[in-house]
Amino acid sequence: MADKATIIMQSGYYDRLYSALVVGTGALSMGMDVSIYFTFWGLDRLKKGRLEKGPLSRMNMLGLGKWMVKRKMKKANVRSLKDLMDDYIELGGKVLACDMTMDIMGVKREDLDRDLIGDYCAVGTYIKEARESDITLFL
Amino acid sequence: MADKATIIMQSGYYDRLYSALVVGTGALSMGMDVSIYFTFWGLDRLKKGRLEKGPLSRMNMLGLGKWMVKRKMKKANVRSLKDLMDDYIELGGKVLACDMTMDIMGVKREDLDRDLIGDYCAVGTYIKEARESDITLFL
Amino acid sequence: MADKATIIMQSGYYDRLYSALVVGTGALSMGMDVSIYFTFWGLDRLKKGRLEKGPLSRMNMLGLGKWMVKRKMKKANVRSLKDLMDDYIELGGKVLACDMTMDIMGVKREDLDRDLIGDYCAVGTYIKEARESDITLFL
Repeated sequence: MADKATIIMQSGYYDRLYSALVVGTGALSMGMDVSIYFTFWGLDRLKKGRLEKGPLSRMNMLGLGKWMVKRKMKKANVRSLKDLMDDYIELGGKVLACDMTMDIMGVKREDLDRDLIGDYCAVGTYIKEARESDITLFL
Repeated sequence: MADKATIIMQSGYYDRLYSALVVGTGALSMGMDVSIYFTFWGLDRLKKGRLEKGPLSRMNMLGLGKWMVKRKMKKANVRSLKDLMDDYIELGGKVLACDMTMDIMGVKREDLDRDLIGDYCAVGTYIKEARESDITLFL
Repeated sequence: MADKATIIMQSGYYDRLYSALVVGTGALSMGMDVSIYFTFWGLDRLKKGRLEKGPLSRMNMLGLGKWMVKRKMKKANVRSLKDLMDDYIELGGKVLACDMTMDIMGVKREDLDRDLIGDYCAVGTYIKEARESDITLFL
């Protein structure tokens, strides 16, 4: 059985989602299985057209706004969030939407971008995977 | 020896504590041992009468204030933070208060809700548990 | 081979870096190997003269500003961030700077405090270490 990484993506911040996907694609390309569980503000990023819409976790720090960061990323030839997500899914990474968050936030399945989501699940699924994982992170 | 999950609860945000307790009760009900170490703003939630007082980690996102989230949770028949904490403790989950935070923040034992706290401890206790844990998270 | 702890330090907040170093030195003193990967706002703390400059993750909470927290820490005889970092490095803790963040943020090696940094690296290094780690955290 392959090594596993299991990430809870609770925050909706641009840079945190970026790191989740960098770690995710990195782990996949090194032969690991990876699942990312989207909860609360993270789940909001899975709504149609909202993937890239998260703010930075620290505005204006380093004197950089989000626009500036994205421009620098482009110039530095760094992949966009959308490209990273496509890579992640193509490499076999699982995107899981948290049922409970959908209940709490009143999010319906038709609000979400079905092209991104692998499955819907509750906490039991997470625990089952996480306890067998070599890397467990909460973002 | 049972599988273990060990969580550091540093943030005081309502939704993050909610997730800690959902993961915690989920893991307990699947036969795992669970410890949550409350530090900094997380510890603040253990003061008398303050469990439910944390703000959301992202105000106004999704157009929802905390009041709205709580109302939606009630309507969706989702458990309150207080109920989740009670379940967590009843299922055998450990609540640990960080000594060092108490020193730094000038928090005294009589400030805390003794009904919640299982023990007081320092970093050595955390490391000892975490290195044997299958799931380690920092919230 | 010694047990390992591997931490991603993405946030630049004073109290989160504090906890990373407390966990790090604690784990080192109990015989573990520890690596901290500094990304995004965490990396900003490795710039010359910026180690102690991070804001608290929750201003004014508990009625305490950062100045107040630092004063309380001094009074409580708690170690400063600088002292903790020195201990961490002296005990053999590794400080790793994320290449990709440096590209994205336009940070140059000469901007960073070379006395702190053990090495520069990309995500592959992180995955390799993290999958062998007993404790994995994302701050």
